[in-house]
Amino acid sequence: MIRRYTRPEMGAVFAEDQRFHWMLQVEVAVAETQAELGLIPKEAAKAIRERASFDVRRIEEIEKTTKHDVIAFVSSVAEKVGAEGRYVHYGMTSSDVLDTALSLQIQAAGRVLLTSVDRLIEALKTRAVAEAHTLCAGRTHGMHAEPTSFGMKLAGFWTELRRHRERVVNALERNAIGKLSGAVGTYSTQSYEVEAGVCRRLGLKPEDIATQVVPRDRHAELFVALSLLGGGLERLAVELRHLQRTELGEVIEAFTPGQKGSSAMPHKKNPISAENITGLSRLLRGYALSALENIALWHERDISHSSVERVILPDAFIVADYATDRMATLIEGLYVDREKMLANMNLSGGSLMSSHLLLALVDTGLSREEAYAEVQRLAHGLKSGDTLREAAGRDAKVSQRLSAAVLDDVFSGRKHQESIAAALARAGLKGGSGDVHAAADGKARK
Amino acid sequence: MIRRYTRPEMGAVFAEDQRFHWMLQVEVAVAETQAELGLIPKEAAKAIRERASFDVRRIEEIEKTTKHDVIAFVSSVAEKVGAEGRYVHYGMTSSDVLDTALSLQIQAAGRVLLTSVDRLIEALKTRAVAEAHTLCAGRTHGMHAEPTSFGMKLAGFWTELRRHRERVVNALERNAIGKLSGAVGTYSTQSYEVEAGVCRRLGLKPEDIATQVVPRDRHAELFVALSLLGGGLERLAVELRHLQRTELGEVIEAFTPGQKGSSAMPHKKNPISAENITGLSRLLRGYALSALENIALWHERDISHSSVERVILPDAFIVADYATDRMATLIEGLYVDREKMLANMNLSGGSLMSSHLLLALVDTGLSREEAYAEVQRLAHGLKSGDTLREAAGRDAKVSQRLSAAVLDDVFSGRKHQESIAAALARAGLKGGSGDVHAAADGKARK
Amino acid sequence: MIRRYTRPEMGAVFAEDQRFHWMLQVEVAVAETQAELGLIPKEAAKAIRERASFDVRRIEEIEKTTKHDVIAFVSSVAEKVGAEGRYVHYGMTSSDVLDTALSLQIQAAGRVLLTSVDRLIEALKTRAVAEAHTLCAGRTHGMHAEPTSFGMKLAGFWTELRRHRERVVNALERNAIGKLSGAVGTYSTQSYEVEAGVCRRLGLKPEDIATQVVPRDRHAELFVALSLLGGGLERLAVELRHLQRTELGEVIEAFTPGQKGSSAMPHKKNPISAENITGLSRLLRGYALSALENIALWHERDISHSSVERVILPDAFIVADYATDRMATLIEGLYVDREKMLANMNLSGGSLMSSHLLLALVDTGLSREEAYAEVQRLAHGLKSGDTLREAAGRDAKVSQRLSAAVLDDVFSGRKHQESIAAALARAGLKGGSGDVHAAADGKARK
Amino acid sequence: MIRRYTRPEMGAVFAEDQRFHWMLQVEVAVAETQAELGLIPKEAAKAIRERASFDVRRIEEIEKTTKHDVIAFVSSVAEKVGAEGRYVHYGMTSSDVLDTALSLQIQAAGRVLLTSVDRLIEALKTRAVAEAHTLCAGRTHGMHAEPTSFGMKLAGFWTELRRHRERVVNALERNAIGKLSGAVGTYSTQSYEVEAGVCRRLGLKPEDIATQVVPRDRHAELFVALSLLGGGLERLAVELRHLQRTELGEVIEAFTPGQKGSSAMPHKKNPISAENITGLSRLLRGYALSALENIALWHERDISHSSVERVILPDAFIVADYATDRMATLIEGLYVDREKMLANMNLSGGSLMSSHLLLALVDTGLSREEAYAEVQRLAHGLKSGDTLREAAGRDAKVSQRLSAAVLDDVFSGRKHQESIAAALARAGLKGGSGDVHAAADGKARK
Repeated sequence: MIRRYTRPEMGAVFAEDQRFHWMLQVEVAVAETQAELGLIPKEAAKAIRERASFDVRRIEEIEKTTKHDVIAFVSSVAEKVGAEGRYVHYGMTSSDVLDTALSLQIQAAGRVLLTSVDRLIEALKTRAVAEAHTLCAGRTHGMHAEPTSFGMKLAGFWTELRRHRERVVNALERNAIGKLSGAVGTYSTQSYEVEAGVCRRLGLKPEDIATQVVPRDRHAELFVALSLLGGGLERLAVELRHLQRTELGEVIEAFTPGQKGSSAMPHKKNPISAENITGLSRLLRGYALSALENIALWHERDISHSSVERVILPDAFIVADYATDRMATLIEGLYVDREKMLANMNLSGGSLMSSHLLLALVDTGLSREEAYAEVQRLAHGLKSGDTLREAAGRDAKVSQRLSAAVLDDVFSGRKHQESIAAALARAGLKGGSGDVHAAADGKARK
Repeated sequence: MIRRYTRPEMGAVFAEDQRFHWMLQVEVAVAETQAELGLIPKEAAKAIRERASFDVRRIEEIEKTTKHDVIAFVSSVAEKVGAEGRYVHYGMTSSDVLDTALSLQIQAAGRVLLTSVDRLIEALKTRAVAEAHTLCAGRTHGMHAEPTSFGMKLAGFWTELRRHRERVVNALERNAIGKLSGAVGTYSTQSYEVEAGVCRRLGLKPEDIATQVVPRDRHAELFVALSLLGGGLERLAVELRHLQRTELGEVIEAFTPGQKGSSAMPHKKNPISAENITGLSRLLRGYALSALENIALWHERDISHSSVERVILPDAFIVADYATDRMATLIEGLYVDREKMLANMNLSGGSLMSSHLLLALVDTGLSREEAYAEVQRLAHGLKSGDTLREAAGRDAKVSQRLSAAVLDDVFSGRKHQESIAAALARAGLKGGSGDVHAAADGKARK
Repeated sequence: MIRRYTRPEMGAVFAEDQRFHWMLQVEVAVAETQAELGLIPKEAAKAIRERASFDVRRIEEIEKTTKHDVIAFVSSVAEKVGAEGRYVHYGMTSSDVLDTALSLQIQAAGRVLLTSVDRLIEALKTRAVAEAHTLCAGRTHGMHAEPTSFGMKLAGFWTELRRHRERVVNALERNAIGKLSGAVGTYSTQSYEVEAGVCRRLGLKPEDIATQVVPRDRHAELFVALSLLGGGLERLAVELRHLQRTELGEVIEAFTPGQKGSSAMPHKKNPISAENITGLSRLLRGYALSALENIALWHERDISHSSVERVILPDAFIVADYATDRMATLIEGLYVDREKMLANMNLSGGSLMSSHLLLALVDTGLSREEAYAEVQRLAHGLKSGDTLREAAGRDAKVSQRLSAAVLDDVFSGRKHQESIAAALARAGLKGGSGDVHAAADGKARK
Repeated sequence: MIRRYTRPEMGAVFAEDQRFHWMLQVEVAVAETQAELGLIPKEAAKAIRERASFDVRRIEEIEKTTKHDVIAFVSSVAEKVGAEGRYVHYGMTSSDVLDTALSLQIQAAGRVLLTSVDRLIEALKTRAVAEAHTLCAGRTHGMHAEPTSFGMKLAGFWTELRRHRERVVNALERNAIGKLSGAVGTYSTQSYEVEAGVCRRLGLKPEDIATQVVPRDRHAELFVALSLLGGGLERLAVELRHLQRTELGEVIEAFTPGQKGSSAMPHKKNPISAENITGLSRLLRGYALSALENIALWHERDISHSSVERVILPDAFIVADYATDRMATLIEGLYVDREKMLANMNLSGGSLMSSHLLLALVDTGLSREEAYAEVQRLAHGLKSGDTLREAAGRDAKVSQRLSAAVLDDVFSGRKHQESIAAALARAGLKGGSGDVHAAADGKARK
């Protein structure tokens, strides 16, 4: 468990005792179901429900002799229950309780993670709406391409994060599995009715056909879902790191008073949260890989997956949760420099509008190739301080085809603002086109 | 493209020309939609639909000068169309046609892959039903654990493969995406109506909020779904390799006449298909990893994903399809040695029934711990040729509590056969419990 | 830090305080070097050397305000030193102390790891020599191929482990790097002489050309060396798991009295150490992957590698060390069932000698193809209980060409024992060919 | 084999026939050695040397029946040789010829790759020397940190590439291995003398202790060396992509006349080579992963590594070679905008010199903390157009302690230029400190 990156809510899920709590929950559900089915005395179930508990130190003590953690756990519980203790773990094999408890733990971890994901989704939505009309340079290959808006950028991440949420939810559902089918999954010592009853009590579904364990493709899907989420967080982190670089200066990670950026260079405000998250996404990819290798267990199971899961189950959830939560904080507190965005957008003399100029020329009957050549000539010929709008106006061939009014409209950004507003509205982001026009009107920043 | 592992059906999807065919399909759908919306002359769309085609050699020729493959493609198509050629690719940016065509290609590849997956699922189902009652040793840690049946094993793979199918289908659905929102996804040069119309024509859904490209988390999900599938194939391949080893000899990969197993060792029949598939699953994990790193493109896109996808898109589909298809052939032709399975199951003197003996003792009022110690003592004390049934019968303490009739029933395997039959029936495998009883009767095993 | 898998020796290297100890070591070496070069007063260096220490709680307290751990550390140290405290960290940037201290920590971790590796190498050597003559089945594709010896197997792992040791040592050497070249590696605030002097004091080499940090290809090499080591441990673990399976029973992991193998199946002795190690090797591959992604830091550095290293540096060393140490214990205590090995080898009626029979036939003038067909026919035609030796003797075609004496020699295993002995002797394993003959004689196998 | 990225030199190594050429080379060396040792007739060796050749179509034909490629190959060669053909492959197992031929192929591929690596190293050296004095902003976290020079940047990559070369060479050496020890590595059908003689003839070293194959840790080391190289190429590619972005404009990938950057945006010059290389490095990481999983073959070998190597051996070498070669072209033709570098460096009003100001203040007796606070106050208070030099001069507290002359020197960049020159000289880059002074003198670019 990675202490530094463990939020308390997630830490609680993976605390050592917590594992036994879920195992206990399973054993109690087993006893109750067995009593209901008349397999054990009702009094035994009652005793177990009322008195079953465990003593971590006692478990460790017993494990020293038995070298088997589940047996040690069961013994400790049985001691607490007393005479009826022999009905604890009745007809169960270790994996029945371990894997079913694991599912409960995974669901609990998933619930915590989803609160972080939801917080981030909400933060992205709020800021996307607020910055819907904040025009800025769209960049492809790191080069200015066409205008977009910062809200449009955030809206893209918002929709991506919702896809990641969906994948995590899908994976959690495919892990809400109980397995009480015994030693090699054949229900030889425990009937299906017990499994069904326990699952109903615990909110799980019985495994279709198990081996000794819940097949590990289910768990692997979960870890790859977390690594996909990590990829999404990384894309956003990289975007913010880019926008924060000195020459761009379009956003700044919140800087708390007294915080020092660098021991040698006092002037710096660094995107350390975004960089931290970038690194964490690498961890998530590594964990996914280990999980994928866990699928091919031997026969009805070997235990090679155990040492892997012992490490990556807490670590992957902790890292995913921490990174998501930290990203939510980052987005909520992000300083957006709208002036700088506009200034950067206009850096290249309006070249960002070149595709519009191209289309306008095609509209006048020029072939696409001719138009392309024409615009490229103008764009590549721009001198410092010059703008494409002015160059187009000065150019005989272009001005012959396009009036000053048309050229003004081409370079106004109107089309971008309108189409972005419509796109966000379609995607379901509140603050639709109406707001945009208001903002566009108020944007007398030029 | 990996020639050796390319089935013709998948090869057809990734042939060089095929890419242009889909690009053409997109361009035609664009022209038709634009004509419908009154954006270009109806005659232009007609001309494009009727005459649009391409010439691969001509494309290569043009690309030599322009160093831009889409421009070269569009120029070639425009030449074929003639005068109306200037309406080809109207208002489009390269990524619009590339990513939408990519989606079409992915769907086509997915359809081929699903035929292989379905063939394997069907083969597993057929053999699972046929071998439902073929008792064999269930093994955990590679050690005999409890009886299971070979059909039960296959049924487990059958349900796992169905989960993999579901994941692949989910991923394909999330990749059935068209994107015609222009340079940086803002619909600045093409209205949403065009995108919507083109998508409707092509059976795709418009991207919610795009950058210049369809966000790569969608594609990454596809590659990880293939790597999960690979993990499932590997688990099955490893199972078969284990069962085929000399000492087990429970299954044999079909061996065609004239085939030689080893140049130095003429007596061998090796599980080379299963080993081949095991290796291929490693490739699929590697591809998934590269795809996960493709998510975090810069800003509205960089093109770093392109060199990756150019390799792994065909390769991952080809490998997944080939491995799945080869596994289907393997399962269909697998020789199952039922005698050997039974013989192996009984190797350890009936120790496989030890958990049943344990439960029977607990039923007589012994504590779990006492019963466990008792059975462990008997099992560890077994001499060669001896059986646990006989040892139990000889043991004063045990025979005092369990009659010979009860002991016979404990060691008969009856419970396993009944419970396996029920499990398969619940999972929806035809040939339910009725069949099982017949088979069990016919096994004349006792 | 993975508590469960942390051996105390490695735990000591990665304890939280320990990091500050190395940072302190660097700061003291800096002060001493600077004093020697006349850059700071000799009294300051003396004061720092004598009084410099730190208070973890105080560091945490300061970090709460500064949010910068190195500044907090330096402040705490300066407080302890008193007036001369302002000469602590003089002209240094954080990365100078962090990366140089990291190198010291890596070297310390490497020393611990190498003790485990050496212990395993020694254990493999000892057991390889002891089992040099223990004939057993060599298996390819899991199928019997030709005789080998268990010592030969272990000798192969012994040489592989020595290669892994070499790689780890190479990587450690390439990480014995000091870096005190300042903010962006330009020695702008600290002369090369300081770096050189500090490195000499600490047993490190100055970085050739640094950025702000030691380039991460060095660290990545270390993590991939650990993942290669993991691959080697896995190969050995998989071998032992195979040999331990019920049907083979050639080795047994040591089983301590009182230990329980399974809560439901009292008769089992499972290869849990080998399985545990198999899983751990998957973790090492995952960590290597994350480390490889750490190389491409931005410009003179970003800090994305930090969150990764904070996790994988301790975890990878801890896991590699634990897995290696546990494997050493496993090998030292491994029970080898020589009888079972011999029995298994002879399972397939002497088919393991088929290649020798083939060569003997070729020696008589038969073409390779004819000989191959002949032997394959005999081998495939073997009935249960029959042996290839007998079948060859009975066969008219074969017995015409090979006398009984020649056939006896072909099937005696003499050639294998002699050639294995010679191979081990060449590889430097004590206990050469003389011993082998004794063992072969004593085996009374024929 | 990835056609698009295959340079002809590397393509020649991995052409289908080429594999058989090396296998033939091995078989000839075997025959010659065996004749020399008196194991086969001298005439047979002569016949094999003179007439041995193969016919790919014939091999494919035979393989259809035998389903074994080596047997097919040997048969084809034997046919060509005639009567003495039966001495071809005498006493060999398939893996003997395959793995030894593989080693030859790897060495050949390595030689090609090293020419690319050397070309890149040379290009980096040349440009590093040429740009040694081109001052530019050093950036940490993407933010301006301190001045460095573009030559210094390149020199860092030059030293890193030399480390990668060393690792590749190490891995190639550890793969220059011949293996002719027979079916399971026991020399049972072929004496060590044959292996030794063949290896001597082919420039290889005999495997210490083999299984049936050369252990795959050797090959895995090679693939991870290529992935490390990929990480280095990626770091350089990312650097160039950053420097080329619109707002920085410090470098430009060479742009050939007629080349179009974007079909929609005619003004763009994109870093497509650097992005291509970035993507290719992801492939190399994926291949390394698959190779690491290839280590743990079963027992004396299984063939699961074969399907992996068939794909990744050519692909990894092809990708590594292409990426390295393309990077060499990129570096050789890179346009460096020295003016823009200087302009960017001075963007933040001289804040890049803040650490020097800090040290100068400490030199006057101020505590580090006080100096840090002072400089941070000045730096954070800078207004647009203002410079830190001026702010320092205006500040009462600072100007009291530092004279204008001292402040001028602090902000001159002199120290950086001198220390960079010295660092490059120490690293062995021609064009040492003398040149730098000239450049510094001539740097009246402001």
